[in-house]
Amino acid sequence: MTTERDFVADHRDDLLADLDAWLRIPGISAQPDRHDDVRRSAEWFADAARRTGFPTVEVWDDGPWLPAVFAEWRSADDDAPTVLVYGHHDVQPVDPLELWHTDPFDPTIDGDVLRARGASDDKGQLLFHLLGVRAHLAATGRTSPAVHLRYLIEGEEESGSPHFEQLLATHRERLGCDIVVVTDTGMVAADVPSTVTGMRGMVSATINLHGPDLDLHSGVFGGAVPNPATAVAELVAALHDADGRVQVPGFYDDVVELTDVERELFAKVPVDDAQFLQVAQSRALSGEAGFTTLERLGARPTAEVNGLGGGYQGAGTKTIIPSDAFAKVSFRLVADQDPAKIINAVEQFVAAHTPDGIATSVDWEGDGVRACLVPIDTPAYRALTDAISAAFDGAQVLPTREGGSGPEAGLQHAVGAPLVFLGVGLPDDQIHAPNEKVTLSMLFKGAEAAALLWSGLARVSARGLRG
Amino acid sequence: MTTERDFVADHRDDLLADLDAWLRIPGISAQPDRHDDVRRSAEWFADAARRTGFPTVEVWDDGPWLPAVFAEWRSADDDAPTVLVYGHHDVQPVDPLELWHTDPFDPTIDGDVLRARGASDDKGQLLFHLLGVRAHLAATGRTSPAVHLRYLIEGEEESGSPHFEQLLATHRERLGCDIVVVTDTGMVAADVPSTVTGMRGMVSATINLHGPDLDLHSGVFGGAVPNPATAVAELVAALHDADGRVQVPGFYDDVVELTDVERELFAKVPVDDAQFLQVAQSRALSGEAGFTTLERLGARPTAEVNGLGGGYQGAGTKTIIPSDAFAKVSFRLVADQDPAKIINAVEQFVAAHTPDGIATSVDWEGDGVRACLVPIDTPAYRALTDAISAAFDGAQVLPTREGGSGPEAGLQHAVGAPLVFLGVGLPDDQIHAPNEKVTLSMLFKGAEAAALLWSGLARVSARGLRG
Repeated sequence: MTTERDFVADHRDDLLADLDAWLRIPGISAQPDRHDDVRRSAEWFADAARRTGFPTVEVWDDGPWLPAVFAEWRSADDDAPTVLVYGHHDVQPVDPLELWHTDPFDPTIDGDVLRARGASDDKGQLLFHLLGVRAHLAATGRTSPAVHLRYLIEGEEESGSPHFEQLLATHRERLGCDIVVVTDTGMVAADVPSTVTGMRGMVSATINLHGPDLDLHSGVFGGAVPNPATAVAELVAALHDADGRVQVPGFYDDVVELTDVERELFAKVPVDDAQFLQVAQSRALSGEAGFTTLERLGARPTAEVNGLGGGYQGAGTKTIIPSDAFAKVSFRLVADQDPAKIINAVEQFVAAHTPDGIATSVDWEGDGVRACLVPIDTPAYRALTDAISAAFDGAQVLPTREGGSGPEAGLQHAVGAPLVFLGVGLPDDQIHAPNEKVTLSMLFKGAEAAALLWSGLARVSARGLRG
Repeated sequence: MTTERDFVADHRDDLLADLDAWLRIPGISAQPDRHDDVRRSAEWFADAARRTGFPTVEVWDDGPWLPAVFAEWRSADDDAPTVLVYGHHDVQPVDPLELWHTDPFDPTIDGDVLRARGASDDKGQLLFHLLGVRAHLAATGRTSPAVHLRYLIEGEEESGSPHFEQLLATHRERLGCDIVVVTDTGMVAADVPSTVTGMRGMVSATINLHGPDLDLHSGVFGGAVPNPATAVAELVAALHDADGRVQVPGFYDDVVELTDVERELFAKVPVDDAQFLQVAQSRALSGEAGFTTLERLGARPTAEVNGLGGGYQGAGTKTIIPSDAFAKVSFRLVADQDPAKIINAVEQFVAAHTPDGIATSVDWEGDGVRACLVPIDTPAYRALTDAISAAFDGAQVLPTREGGSGPEAGLQHAVGAPLVFLGVGLPDDQIHAPNEKVTLSMLFKGAEAAALLWSGLARVSARGLRG
């Protein structure tokens, strides 16, 4: 018998060889001329899962989506919980190519760092799972995992998962699970193990304001007719009070507030404001009064103006009262805000802030995306953080939150099970940018944590996991 | 001896023949390929002034400006006051040509209406002056006018008078006068004689706001850094209070308030709000509380947003915090607001409304234009309105104001004399638009009023005119 850690250490070369092979396939989902490569990438991972021992491996190509991989390995213990691992095998485009120091599809190892497109996002992380399963079996002496394992490896995540909801609906009966383990995120630092405990949702819209039916001369008409550019400014200005709180009535009604424990743990995350400002290239912080930067980014909903326009856009002056103006706004949501409810509240807010003589319309971008939240007082969360902590020599695992939005909330909604996040990317992995890299020791720790996690989750009942 | 009216009636054909000849010259100052025509137009008017009897007629072509005409006819009465008549001989472009029902440079008479580019703005009005001088001489039996008459007929007014200040400085000693008679405006209606008593001035600027040095992802950074699009909206929204009053400190300090008499006379001007809304194609009125539409347009200063921009401008959504945003603003001024003082006050206002982390800069469009104001309790104003009233069979002459800005304030400033406005255009003359027209009977009334005006002004001393 070996330990999970020893097994991983003894088989590092397997992971490196797999990485080298898979990263050579340029499966860029955003580029139609790379879609054959996306298919090859799916086939490659399907083979790798078969080699790992998964009895059921399928490439799902039965819809408008790019090929996804489904793999299943049932536990011999029939009443073991079912775990669904989510990740994606497609990668980002590589432009601008001239900024890469090495060929993005010729993986290069330099000490503990491997550089290639997809190394961190998300192929490296999926490969630690394959090594993790083997370590789990070797260390426990089992011939099947301690949990029923299902993998769902999407092929369109880097294109915004346009058909993911449809894929989930089509294969609903194959995806039942008690817990989802998302493997597409990162940690605060190599020596600060952490796990994502929330992702924000979003609704976004273009608000159009129409005033006079034509641009008017501001000398002849100025001061006597409503100006839609002024009206849009007043509408946008009304979105926040002086404390940075969003003024849409009911906006905060369903917000799950941070617990004291979460705030204490957030405060331990070693990201300081100076460092944040440097990354943001901003000269000041801003936001909702009473919250730290990390809390504002992860745990608080926002209203941001993404674009503003109306009237003359050229050089110098054109003395008109514009006929039209617009604001593009997005609202980042947190659990348990309901996108439909927020859309309704914003529409009422816009109507209430529409002056006489201005017509407003709001064009929403789809139905919006829910936020997802991982409660930190559950058996699943404890199993996750115990596994990560063990892989990091007993270090405390800190909770973090993602400010952005991904397909995870839709996945959670579709399968009706809670989420946890096991990801070992690092903030400087340059995902979506030139010179993407992954830290190999993080991948090995990920493999160890995954191996331990399956044992840990098996000690919780299916019911215990679902909460 | 004849009366002014009879002389004009007997010589209508002279005016029509002159109009037909001059309007055939397409002197469009905005189009460089028409600048030869602008020169021909100047030469044509110079000849016409010579034919009328002006002893001194010069085409001023000694600077970067397009040719202007100066004509002088000194009175035999040495101590008579000096009058400077201002107008312009250049015309607007004719695009879109396909919307003209007749050739814009082939004058067409239909009953009391003559259609051609420049018929009302400003050739027709200058020609009534030539006939008016002849009527003045004939009716008074004089061989020289009762006042020293100077004409300054500009050739760049339709291009924004870019060199007018320089022309005025170059010829300062030839332009001395006790009163300026501006002939480039109109009346309320054919049966409602009126005269302009003010034109608004203007300062305008682009206000630039810079936040983070690059567009940021609104998920990753949203809610924690200042957004320049939000900041520009808050700045613009702060420009007005709920009563539509401009909130720039000191903005109203130097405003000459309407007198009770002016408000009473304004109230008699037969322009109603429904008609105004129809012309503006607006669904509501707006503006400073406590003032009528005509007062808001003519006698009150404004702050208008002419353009607003920042961030994403395309279709749908792009979830960014923009790096930059801007507002293009113009402030219409009234007497005695000082453009330099207002520029300073706005800059302080912008600085006071610049949040932490946002850098603002204000790019002003030149030094601004002063407003001009004609007091209605002066001998010059009484002489003007008496002359107009007589030409309109004793009807009361109402004061109006122009909401826009022209070269008149700069002229007043340069020559250091008060202004009055004698113009007979009508609101539906379609100046600057296809199918420009002039009402011939208005031109004949203008000629009669001008003839009477020289006698009337001669009865006031030069000192009395200067006030």
